[in-house]
Amino acid sequence: MKKAIILLSGGLDSTTVSAIAKNQNYELYGISFDYDQRHKGELEVAKKTAKRFGFKEHKIIKSGVGQLGGSALTADIAVPKDKKIEDIGKEIPITYVPARNVIFLSYALGYSETINCFDIFIGVNSVDFSGYPDCTPEFIKAFENMANISASIVKKTGNKIKIHSPLENMTKKEIIQTGIKLGVDYAETVTCYDYDPNLGACGTCESCKLRLNGFKEAGIKDPAKYRIEIY
Amino acid sequence: MKKAIILLSGGLDSTTVSAIAKNQNYELYGISFDYDQRHKGELEVAKKTAKRFGFKEHKIIKSGVGQLGGSALTADIAVPKDKKIEDIGKEIPITYVPARNVIFLSYALGYSETINCFDIFIGVNSVDFSGYPDCTPEFIKAFENMANISASIVKKTGNKIKIHSPLENMTKKEIIQTGIKLGVDYAETVTCYDYDPNLGACGTCESCKLRLNGFKEAGIKDPAKYRIEIY
Repeated sequence: MKKAIILLSGGLDSTTVSAIAKNQNYELYGISFDYDQRHKGELEVAKKTAKRFGFKEHKIIKSGVGQLGGSALTADIAVPKDKKIEDIGKEIPITYVPARNVIFLSYALGYSETINCFDIFIGVNSVDFSGYPDCTPEFIKAFENMANISASIVKKTGNKIKIHSPLENMTKKEIIQTGIKLGVDYAETVTCYDYDPNLGACGTCESCKLRLNGFKEAGIKDPAKYRIEIY
Repeated sequence: MKKAIILLSGGLDSTTVSAIAKNQNYELYGISFDYDQRHKGELEVAKKTAKRFGFKEHKIIKSGVGQLGGSALTADIAVPKDKKIEDIGKEIPITYVPARNVIFLSYALGYSETINCFDIFIGVNSVDFSGYPDCTPEFIKAFENMANISASIVKKTGNKIKIHSPLENMTKKEIIQTGIKLGVDYAETVTCYDYDPNLGACGTCESCKLRLNGFKEAGIKDPAKYRIEIY
């Protein structure tokens, strides 16, 4: 069985990616990050997701990304709640965490070297997204190129590392439809930037808005728990 | 004054790089990593180095690199001491930390975004080195390319990020000569993989061997403290 590393946050996208990789018969290895994110509840969700999908191993890396500051997701800056759905993605928002995907993929690369794995999956998407520059296909390609130059397992084996981003060109609606076809239970996924483990998702941050819009366009009710009335 | 981020370990190379960047009139911002390295004493050395060179800021990031395992520098594998100087660099040794420079540069990139800095300095060298693939000019170029695609400050300003690796093509001898010309006190630098803050450097790991050979070729006595007799 071929190994795959999944960057797993327990959100809608990375859970769908787990289902896609599992469906492609990969043996799954998860990597999640404790980065002083305000929505730390997602780590518990990620653990449950890894269990549900039968991950062979799940690493939770204590990374000091929050020490860098500069983002509403880690520093003491409020998560904006007033964005209109049509404005999302037009400019890079304050929720952007500097170099987050670069750092996360770098750890995944280190992990791949220790378990001899050449397939790394990440749930980035540049259609219905917040406009983060580290979510684009150009970025993924440039990272993959750099990875193949820097990794000792490539030097030793001649095999190439592939960064898979199967959601890259899907709308949120298509991601949800793909996941449902593969049996994903979206009640168990957390997308919210301001998630409360007891009360549920906020329903008003841009991440919630993108998600809810995806379900609306798919004509499906979002089964997740929200702390405001959605339907 | 232009800002520069220096990847600072407190070793011979990164200290020389600090002197080079200071000499080029940059305002210095340091970033060091607590990565469960067995030679943790280097962090205290890095702090002193930052002070000596008048760094504006010095971040020590608690990173979970050691959680990935797989290296003699972090896991419970002995640091080899029996390598001959002429064999160093021929193959990737067990002291290679998977994706270490990728991860460190990624944090530096995040840091650069939060302080609006476009110049990142790293003391990699691919002449007198251990053969780590993440020390080569090809790697630095590929990382720089990826950084300029992923960083929001590039999107926002149109400026480019430059990864400076001024030691890239120098021999250890030339690095030492450059540093001495710039007033570096090498007594205050720690290179050893098995450093003991009280007793000094081991003198027998490959990192010590490369250093001692550099001083020998430069015809200078290494002023650092060793726990074995060197001269």
